[in-house]
Amino acid sequence: MDNKKFTRHIDLSRVKITDNFWRDKIELVCREVIPYQYLALSDKIEGAEKSYCIENFKKAIAVNKKIKAGQKVEKFPVDKWHYDESNSDINAFHGWVFQDSDVYKWIEAAGFHLTIKYDEKLKAQADEYIELICEAQLENGYLDTLYIINDRDKVFTNLKDYHELYCFGHLAEAGVSFFNATGERKLLDAACRFADLICSTFNEENIHGYPGHEICEMALVKLYDVTGEEKYLKTAEFFINERGKKPYYFDIERNTETDGKEYIYNQAHIEPRKQDEAVGHAVRGVYLYSGMADISKRLKDDELYLACKKIWRNIADKKMYITGGIGSTVHGEAFTYDYDLPNDLAYCETCASIGLIFFAQRMAEIEQKAEYFSVVERALYNTVLSGMAKDGKSFFYVNALEVFPKASKFDERKKHIKPVRQKWFSCACCPPNLARLISSLGSYIYYENDEEIYVNLLISSKVKTDKADVEIQYNSSSGDVKIYVKAKKAFTLKVRNGEHGYTSYYINNEDTINLNIRQKPKLIKCSENVRENMGKVAVMKGNMVYCLEQADNGFDLHRLLISSNPEFEERDDYILANGFREKESEKGLYFEYKVPEYERIKLRFIPYYKWGNRGENEMTVYIRVKNE
Amino acid sequence: MDNKKFTRHIDLSRVKITDNFWRDKIELVCREVIPYQYLALSDKIEGAEKSYCIENFKKAIAVNKKIKAGQKVEKFPVDKWHYDESNSDINAFHGWVFQDSDVYKWIEAAGFHLTIKYDEKLKAQADEYIELICEAQLENGYLDTLYIINDRDKVFTNLKDYHELYCFGHLAEAGVSFFNATGERKLLDAACRFADLICSTFNEENIHGYPGHEICEMALVKLYDVTGEEKYLKTAEFFINERGKKPYYFDIERNTETDGKEYIYNQAHIEPRKQDEAVGHAVRGVYLYSGMADISKRLKDDELYLACKKIWRNIADKKMYITGGIGSTVHGEAFTYDYDLPNDLAYCETCASIGLIFFAQRMAEIEQKAEYFSVVERALYNTVLSGMAKDGKSFFYVNALEVFPKASKFDERKKHIKPVRQKWFSCACCPPNLARLISSLGSYIYYENDEEIYVNLLISSKVKTDKADVEIQYNSSSGDVKIYVKAKKAFTLKVRNGEHGYTSYYINNEDTINLNIRQKPKLIKCSENVRENMGKVAVMKGNMVYCLEQADNGFDLHRLLISSNPEFEERDDYILANGFREKESEKGLYFEYKVPEYERIKLRFIPYYKWGNRGENEMTVYIRVKNE
Repeated sequence: MDNKKFTRHIDLSRVKITDNFWRDKIELVCREVIPYQYLALSDKIEGAEKSYCIENFKKAIAVNKKIKAGQKVEKFPVDKWHYDESNSDINAFHGWVFQDSDVYKWIEAAGFHLTIKYDEKLKAQADEYIELICEAQLENGYLDTLYIINDRDKVFTNLKDYHELYCFGHLAEAGVSFFNATGERKLLDAACRFADLICSTFNEENIHGYPGHEICEMALVKLYDVTGEEKYLKTAEFFINERGKKPYYFDIERNTETDGKEYIYNQAHIEPRKQDEAVGHAVRGVYLYSGMADISKRLKDDELYLACKKIWRNIADKKMYITGGIGSTVHGEAFTYDYDLPNDLAYCETCASIGLIFFAQRMAEIEQKAEYFSVVERALYNTVLSGMAKDGKSFFYVNALEVFPKASKFDERKKHIKPVRQKWFSCACCPPNLARLISSLGSYIYYENDEEIYVNLLISSKVKTDKADVEIQYNSSSGDVKIYVKAKKAFTLKVRNGEHGYTSYYINNEDTINLNIRQKPKLIKCSENVRENMGKVAVMKGNMVYCLEQADNGFDLHRLLISSNPEFEERDDYILANGFREKESEKGLYFEYKVPEYERIKLRFIPYYKWGNRGENEMTVYIRVKNE
Repeated sequence: MDNKKFTRHIDLSRVKITDNFWRDKIELVCREVIPYQYLALSDKIEGAEKSYCIENFKKAIAVNKKIKAGQKVEKFPVDKWHYDESNSDINAFHGWVFQDSDVYKWIEAAGFHLTIKYDEKLKAQADEYIELICEAQLENGYLDTLYIINDRDKVFTNLKDYHELYCFGHLAEAGVSFFNATGERKLLDAACRFADLICSTFNEENIHGYPGHEICEMALVKLYDVTGEEKYLKTAEFFINERGKKPYYFDIERNTETDGKEYIYNQAHIEPRKQDEAVGHAVRGVYLYSGMADISKRLKDDELYLACKKIWRNIADKKMYITGGIGSTVHGEAFTYDYDLPNDLAYCETCASIGLIFFAQRMAEIEQKAEYFSVVERALYNTVLSGMAKDGKSFFYVNALEVFPKASKFDERKKHIKPVRQKWFSCACCPPNLARLISSLGSYIYYENDEEIYVNLLISSKVKTDKADVEIQYNSSSGDVKIYVKAKKAFTLKVRNGEHGYTSYYINNEDTINLNIRQKPKLIKCSENVRENMGKVAVMKGNMVYCLEQADNGFDLHRLLISSNPEFEERDDYILANGFREKESEKGLYFEYKVPEYERIKLRFIPYYKWGNRGENEMTVYIRVKNE
């Protein structure tokens, strides 16, 4: 690990995105998702399933007041993942065990928006929620409404399942985002107080536990970065060091003895330093790996970094869908085995691709290999964007690569694959995660270190750093790129060149770099180790994956083939290609084979992320190829 | 419905199978399966999971004695599908709710074997078990050990889930088989006494219920056929008439009100006469449809027969695997929607194909269409035979068409698909069902009515009827068929001619019919409505499906293709064909498509039923085709 090569992202406040496509997406999030979720958190949306999120904070405040007044406080059981009005006392906590994180993610996204463009109303809304959050915090810094409301004596007794450290992670990320946006420390301080409690609870002398759902590792590093407080980094490392050690902490916690196989779900079956494969719940996985990368960079921990590299290779080479989706099965929302990438049974949670982006961003900070931001692009332009409808009002949680609405309706195995985006989810992790990622996009375009500025993503934008002002103008239709640079001191500008590397430009003054990187549609094949895709191809332009939708190509997409010589015709919004529809050979279920007849047709491909915006219909990414 | 065309099977005692292949199979069942199960029922096999079957009968006898002696009898809960030593009192019933049926199926098969060839030891073993069964029967005829042991007051209170009427069905079939074999009425009488209780319990004036797991409809018809007792037929009809009526009996029983969707599993969502599609649990389905066909024939019920015909068409045209397997999903072991026939997720329970054979046999008795026995052949030579290992010592419950051992091990979705046959199952429905089907094969080869004898299956055998002695000599290698007929009076011999029909031969004396029906291997395509099989074919010879196994063709069967001009070479045990192995194009997960290169190879196909006899390895029925 060569720390001279380390880079860091550039603060969101220094970057201005001028690209129309992304400006529209960011504004859509600001206009639709953030205000909608603001109301959803307080259960002010008629007809929507209740969130209970703010209600829980208000209940926690009442408990907190009683405690401070020395009054007796009721207890309720903490024994479920989800509490609703049918299975818990009306005065108890409601919603999912991780319900608090919803408001934290909302504040984090709001912080990013306030950084980009100040908005009084949004600021006031955030202040209102921050006020409630801080009032709910216990004297000792503890802050998780499930346990505050239901049972103060049970805190940190079920790290495996009940998400206190997960909620803390999102609290810390929200605190950092809001502090960066406004300079106001209130929420950041609350996060630090909870962090202090966590640091004094989890250490060599006290509890040797670690979170069941990771995130607090990378969140503690963020707190360390912004406060300089060493113990936050040390506690993050402690969680990594303890994870997967024998005897298993989760065994001790549950008073049992297992072989650890069930902790594969939590990536806690072996020590992270010994892990070399992405396993278990995909979101948890990539959150852990992101934290590992963060820690290995800051502590120059080569062993931990080597594990990160092995895990990265396993994902990128064997467990990642062409769309940047990860998680091949609904069972445990999990990674499966190498090359198991079924199109029609995929899980590919939006949040998992967001987590994969986090992991890639952190790996690039350690070594600026082009493949990391190539994967960021792949995940961003396909699975992440696909997560949100054109109008920002509905969302996919699962992003399969082949959808047949009849199967989603009647096949238990495909019930998780929705043929249309859903308005909101009771387990609403993806929409706010998507909101925070898109809102903070500006901070990932450029990385820097003392000698260099890296252009990771070709997105029209401007950045001001100590070394230079840089402006990218990129026209994705013509492929023309102009990069204007005004250096304040000599430095090297490094521009990512696809997957292959970064091209260097030594700059010591004012300069304009002209490039043309026009992407052409291509037929892409998948490794022959992926059983599902033999004889099939996908269409891509750069890292943008295309798909066929029934709305354009008629029903029964499985009857279509693309020519190996497709003569692509690019249009504004779609691509035409030479293809075929296999004619029906005979009535009946089984009959003697004759070489099929094919009708020549034009296939119409649209970007994958745009699918499902025209009602319920079939979609496929992969199509059989006919060699000509 | 034209009752002049009705046919009936010929008693097993009149038919002698001379065919080596089938004689070996029947002897294998007699030598391996029957003796093994005899011991299994009494838990005398070391290391095997306990059956508890005979133990339950002994407990029931003790209860019965106490009742007769006027002593107080303990009660235990009846609240589960399965009772083992961990979740029930040691003195209570153990095993599955349908555990009694295991000994009934064993006796039924034993009866068939005693019919074919008397065996003193087997007879004595059967007598021993029959003695126990009859001793356990309550004074009023009731006979189900779960309720006798656990709670006499609760009988017939959970028809939906707890299988009393199902166990009765197998008791009746055992009673009939043993009576036919030996002329001894003891078990038959016990079945009739239980049937009498059922008839007086379920009728217009009393309980309007019906079984959750069908079989007793066809079993009551068997009792009617052998005893001539009208009420048995009437009660069978009553079950059909009540099934699916609103308000749902299962709702009443459970004191709830539903829209009936959950009763699709039991085919009880609408009245059988209104059903036109095969739905729900596949075994239950085909058992119901068999009963419906039985009743419609005997009562000349055109409406019911029409429903049978519609359901048959739905299965044969849209829901049957090429192997005669049915049930496309593990969820509810069920039928799904039309043309949903995934190869690698199939359920295709051995018992379901046996039930499909029952249904086809009964449909053929009403109208001798060749397609019925063509389906019998398809199910028999593929899914049924595949259920048992070459040595008769291990069994498949599930018969998928594509098996990748790694997936079976690591993919939750494919956990039900075992890559090797299992020694025995705690839910041991398939092995004894297979035993009784194979043992009784002789009775299905020929059907007759007053004017005709039908040859349904080309299996070397001899039959003696009132009309004639017939002998078939069939050499499957050469395709030569000789049928010797010695008529006692003039009649028409009808020989099935593939799927297309029966060829008639008018015979009034002694005659020899010479045919050649040599089957050649063919490439078979599946309807384009089946998404999974586009671009793929299977190899069949007659109704025998062939498959590729890793043991012969190397790993990664998905890389293989068959030529559209395969130039089949037939060997004793296998078929060679021209094919290709797709060469690896590039390292990496995603890359630009180039027309692949192929290595020419010889593919080696073996009969599907023989797969999995050489250890754990990959298998596939469908293979991609390369048009040349």
